Amino acid sequence: ARKYVENVEFSAMDATRSDPKFLYQVYAAAIKAGATVINIPDTVGYALPDEFAELVKGVMENVPGIENVLVSVHCHNDLGLAVANSLAAARVGARQIECAVNGLGERAGNASLEEVVMIINTRKDYVDLTTGVNTREIYQTSRLVSMLTGYNVQPNKAIVGDNAFAHESGIHQDGVLKHRVTYEIMHPEDVGLVESEIYLGKHSGRHALKAKLEEMGFYLDDKGLERAFIRFKELAGKKKEITVKDLEAIALDEIRTLEELFQLEYMQSSSGTGAIPIAAVKLSREGKSYEATATGDGQVDAVCKAIAKATKVKAKLVSYQVQAITKGLDAMGDVTIKLDIDGHEVVGRGVSPDIIEASARAYINAINRGIQKGLLEKKKLARKAKAGTRGKASSRKAGS
Amino acid sequence: ARKYVENVEFSAMDATRSDPKFLYQVYAAAIKAGATVINIPDTVGYALPDEFAELVKGVMENVPGIENVLVSVHCHNDLGLAVANSLAAARVGARQIECAVNGLGERAGNASLEEVVMIINTRKDYVDLTTGVNTREIYQTSRLVSMLTGYNVQPNKAIVGDNAFAHESGIHQDGVLKHRVTYEIMHPEDVGLVESEIYLGKHSGRHALKAKLEEMGFYLDDKGLERAFIRFKELAGKKKEITVKDLEAIALDEIRTLEELFQLEYMQSSSGTGAIPIAAVKLSREGKSYEATATGDGQVDAVCKAIAKATKVKAKLVSYQVQAITKGLDAMGDVTIKLDIDGHEVVGRGVSPDIIEASARAYINAINRGIQKGLLEKKKLARKAKAGTRGKASSRKAGS
Repeated sequence: ARKYVENVEFSAMDATRSDPKFLYQVYAAAIKAGATVINIPDTVGYALPDEFAELVKGVMENVPGIENVLVSVHCHNDLGLAVANSLAAARVGARQIECAVNGLGERAGNASLEEVVMIINTRKDYVDLTTGVNTREIYQTSRLVSMLTGYNVQPNKAIVGDNAFAHESGIHQDGVLKHRVTYEIMHPEDVGLVESEIYLGKHSGRHALKAKLEEMGFYLDDKGLERAFIRFKELAGKKKEITVKDLEAIALDEIRTLEELFQLEYMQSSSGTGAIPIAAVKLSREGKSYEATATGDGQVDAVCKAIAKATKVKAKLVSYQVQAITKGLDAMGDVTIKLDIDGHEVVGRGVSPDIIEASARAYINAINRGIQKGLLEKKKLARKAKAGTRGKASSRKAGS
Repeated sequence: ARKYVENVEFSAMDATRSDPKFLYQVYAAAIKAGATVINIPDTVGYALPDEFAELVKGVMENVPGIENVLVSVHCHNDLGLAVANSLAAARVGARQIECAVNGLGERAGNASLEEVVMIINTRKDYVDLTTGVNTREIYQTSRLVSMLTGYNVQPNKAIVGDNAFAHESGIHQDGVLKHRVTYEIMHPEDVGLVESEIYLGKHSGRHALKAKLEEMGFYLDDKGLERAFIRFKELAGKKKEITVKDLEAIALDEIRTLEELFQLEYMQSSSGTGAIPIAAVKLSREGKSYEATATGDGQVDAVCKAIAKATKVKAKLVSYQVQAITKGLDAMGDVTIKLDIDGHEVVGRGVSPDIIEASARAYINAINRGIQKGLLEKKKLARKAKAGTRGKASSRKAGS
């Protein structure tokens, strides 16, 4: 492999349940063959911190040539110890920790990037290590990953959970007010959690919106900005306060809106006790209109069935989630829908103060992603599209 | 304190950032004064495992009389290390781990019970400890706690997350099929995660439902069972398959339904692009009817405003969440609403295949809980109720 690239990582699956002596030989052979990174994975999340540190130390002391390569660890979280194991390994000399934002990964996930980074950062005094990570981007990154993957973060998740910096009990609140260090070992600002004021209202113009969005890191094209502006005006008419999170929701929604695919033009729905939930939708795509009506077990079911009819896309619902983006009943509803289209999962999201409309947007977004990934209308796409549009969906999952 | 009770636990707040020598003296004094449990809390989740083990060891070796008391630890999860720290302490002799189901607790929470238990259970070979916990109740307990507190569990949470036992990548799936131990260090059954078959359909009677519910651990009174049966029949008419999770949702909803408080009799709602969302509700309480209509930013907003009008309860929405209980678009929607009533938070939940109805049920449930906790109608309640109905809401939060 070294003939083709500079950087070759060798990983021994399930290292923590292997015979260490055999493992040393395998790693030695890999280094001889040109590996530049030796990875020690805890593939099924079985190791305990002391035990794992012992294994890493063993590798560092017994593998010939190990001093010339980078030692890496890749821990899974099946027993909730991925972060502790990674840290234990770093303390005995591993210098690469494979981790993921929000701790995402196979099964219970991998070591959580934000926890690993903030441990090293907060406890420099004890661990004597550094990372190159700009911690102020952690919170935004976590939200973005959560929005795009459809995997929510539980409120009591360390560092990036909604409650991570919330002091509820009276005795703690009192302590924080009197002396901040009492209960805060990290500042919310350290991870980029700032509830910054926003001075946009219904009289603000396009330029003000554009400037604010760019300050937040969102760069929309002209069409996207125009649509975002219309939605911003609508929202400003309804809500007293427009928050950073509202703007973020609109911007992300526009970034997700795929051009020249199905767009929601119109929808209507109703239900009641003893009445059959009913919905009507009108979609457009490349100038053509698609209309349908449907009934369902609830309005969400009805509106999604109507969209399915209008688009002629058959899909199975895998999961459905809603979260309120801001507080108050006039909050934007943020709906995530995961569909199974022909055995492939696609995630769609939509936001709106109306939960049914948000659901419709999420469903359409998922279908549009399915189309973009080439899961639907393969023949039509094959004719029109350039190579490379397809196949993106299947090559994402890797081993270890 | 020992004069009044047998079991006295002494806890030294923020022990991990205290001077150990001083800490030894404090603990020694507490033991002299009669403490039977000495608790070492990591109040702000600041400690690293080795460091914490060192502290616990120090206490065990340097505090006079420590051999006659139980050493306990109470770890917080601010850096994601609560479980690892608790385990490290247990390995040097602590014999009480204070933990919480789903890792709930102040800020990022406490050590997660299910992770602590499953580590000790799965790695008996290494840690040589046992717990008295029946692990087969873990999954159900986690779901129940999540439903009752309104704190969701993220899909990649160890042990009890939706994905904890899901193998997604091809190489892992292949491994599991060939030899289960390859990727499963625990069996889903070990924690009580069983997708058991259910043979109830639209022709099943009350007795079959009652028997099945009791098998699942739900004991409803006659009224509750009658209402559950009606909802079961409705659902069986709509859905092909009734799952254990559907039944669980109905049973929990009935358990939550508080007698003689507001009940939902009727509701109707609709919205559309360019149309104003509108809702009408009819509630009953102790034989009286309460009706109202309202408009809102979305149907959820409209229906909640209508309920607020009908009940005359002023409340602020703190959070709103929806999850689908089962797969498919005909899934039951499970809505959690957290309200702020006069500075006190109450959580309400409601389930229905119709998300707007589920929202209405959740809102009413939250208001009913507020009433039950004595947050509303204090004068009226004071006249009617016996002592002890009030005050329950405020005394829950404790220190450390």
